[in-house]
Amino acid sequence: MLKRFGVSVAADLLEGFDELVASRGYANRSEAIRDLIRDALVQREWESGDAEAAGAVVLVYDHHRRELQARLTRLQHEAHDRIISTMHAHLDHDNCIEVILLRGKPGQLKGIGEKLIATRGVKHGRVVSTTMGKHLS
Amino acid sequence: MLKRFGVSVAADLLEGFDELVASRGYANRSEAIRDLIRDALVQREWESGDAEAAGAVVLVYDHHRRELQARLTRLQHEAHDRIISTMHAHLDHDNCIEVILLRGKPGQLKGIGEKLIATRGVKHGRVVSTTMGKHLS
Amino acid sequence: MLKRFGVSVAADLLEGFDELVASRGYANRSEAIRDLIRDALVQREWESGDAEAAGAVVLVYDHHRRELQARLTRLQHEAHDRIISTMHAHLDHDNCIEVILLRGKPGQLKGIGEKLIATRGVKHGRVVSTTMGKHLS
Amino acid sequence: MLKRFGVSVAADLLEGFDELVASRGYANRSEAIRDLIRDALVQREWESGDAEAAGAVVLVYDHHRRELQARLTRLQHEAHDRIISTMHAHLDHDNCIEVILLRGKPGQLKGIGEKLIATRGVKHGRVVSTTMGKHLS
Repeated sequence: MLKRFGVSVAADLLEGFDELVASRGYANRSEAIRDLIRDALVQREWESGDAEAAGAVVLVYDHHRRELQARLTRLQHEAHDRIISTMHAHLDHDNCIEVILLRGKPGQLKGIGEKLIATRGVKHGRVVSTTMGKHLS
Repeated sequence: MLKRFGVSVAADLLEGFDELVASRGYANRSEAIRDLIRDALVQREWESGDAEAAGAVVLVYDHHRRELQARLTRLQHEAHDRIISTMHAHLDHDNCIEVILLRGKPGQLKGIGEKLIATRGVKHGRVVSTTMGKHLS
Repeated sequence: MLKRFGVSVAADLLEGFDELVASRGYANRSEAIRDLIRDALVQREWESGDAEAAGAVVLVYDHHRRELQARLTRLQHEAHDRIISTMHAHLDHDNCIEVILLRGKPGQLKGIGEKLIATRGVKHGRVVSTTMGKHLS
Repeated sequence: MLKRFGVSVAADLLEGFDELVASRGYANRSEAIRDLIRDALVQREWESGDAEAAGAVVLVYDHHRRELQARLTRLQHEAHDRIISTMHAHLDHDNCIEVILLRGKPGQLKGIGEKLIATRGVKHGRVVSTTMGKHLS
């Protein structure tokens, strides 16, 4: 069910906002505002840490590193009840990028991500916070 | 001049937003939405980097460190045309906190901040991006 | 080729760092420091924006939304020369999570990500910056 | 007391790091590494939230707004036991920038900052996390 409410904004602030709406490719202001709201709610979800969240870990590594893939796979198996699925792609002859999708409490997801990123041979990694989507329409 | 427009939001998203509005102490939804818009515009201002912006550098350091204050003051004088003013406070017997307010192009402000933070003896520092306020009502 | 250099750190800073090394699961201090260095370099790569980078876009959306998947697929095809691959997973009966891996200049990757995130019906999205890994051993 | 330890880093990673050290104006690698370590520790301090931290709130607002300064001052008085000091500067005929230095638990400091930022008429605000400096040499 959609609800509608009015927002008052000074003319020049609205002008700047309309430029942002256009440059990011939003269909209209409501779209853009819904995204700003959702992003603020997801951030709060991850800060409070109680509700189930979704997240992703992005890793870049050299697959030639001895034992590295075995180690990453082992860590993922230890967290298998939090992992939704994993994708792997080849950046060049040596470098791979891997994305692991996770669900669980934010603290758990951070912990799993930090361990994967800390693994010797991982060149770069990031934990990305997002949402299960249930309470965000 | 205030302009008014309508926003359509799903009922449960609105519920989450109303909680956020209350917990952060906003008087009403319009207030909160204006802040989300302004923050997105300030971020874009700092990313594009062309217009004059305002910023702050926050430094924590031990004032007993030999030559440290002299060095920080010298760096600030080299950038005196970008510096608005500076505040200094005492955290305990040893530690000071200092805030330097700046105005100029985002790239310049980052550069000045990075040099201050990089000074030997500075324990922690951050560059904070904000706005001259002119185009944000 | 590995190079070795010495770092001087105050005793209590080292103590805090050793706790961090342990809690994040690093094998040793060198591992942790290499990660701090790499993360600073990736940030700089994305800020300067000239070199080829890798990135990911994470999207959460309701696949029941009419035309949404078609629209997301169309946007991805328009950017097919920047997209490495895409993974899709089901969070619950309604919600999907999708990760799109990208390579290209940071500005391009941000632009593609912003358009995908701005698409009507996408509940939450983030652009994640990482690296092609070539210059990071 | 200074402690010294060795770090092993691949040659090309070290090359990138040395460029970063130079461009940010660090005197040597140890300086830069100490800053990376301290920043990671301050982030953890703010995430765990138990120990006393220092912080700053940066506000930009139009001082002509009726009642605004009175309201900001009242909010600051309610939090007077957390506030170290405040600095105010004039950006132009209308706009002011104000920095409020705070000490206390990260959650409290965020709460005070969010309330100040949420006050009607404040154009932009940020909460900046830093440290009391005690455990960071």
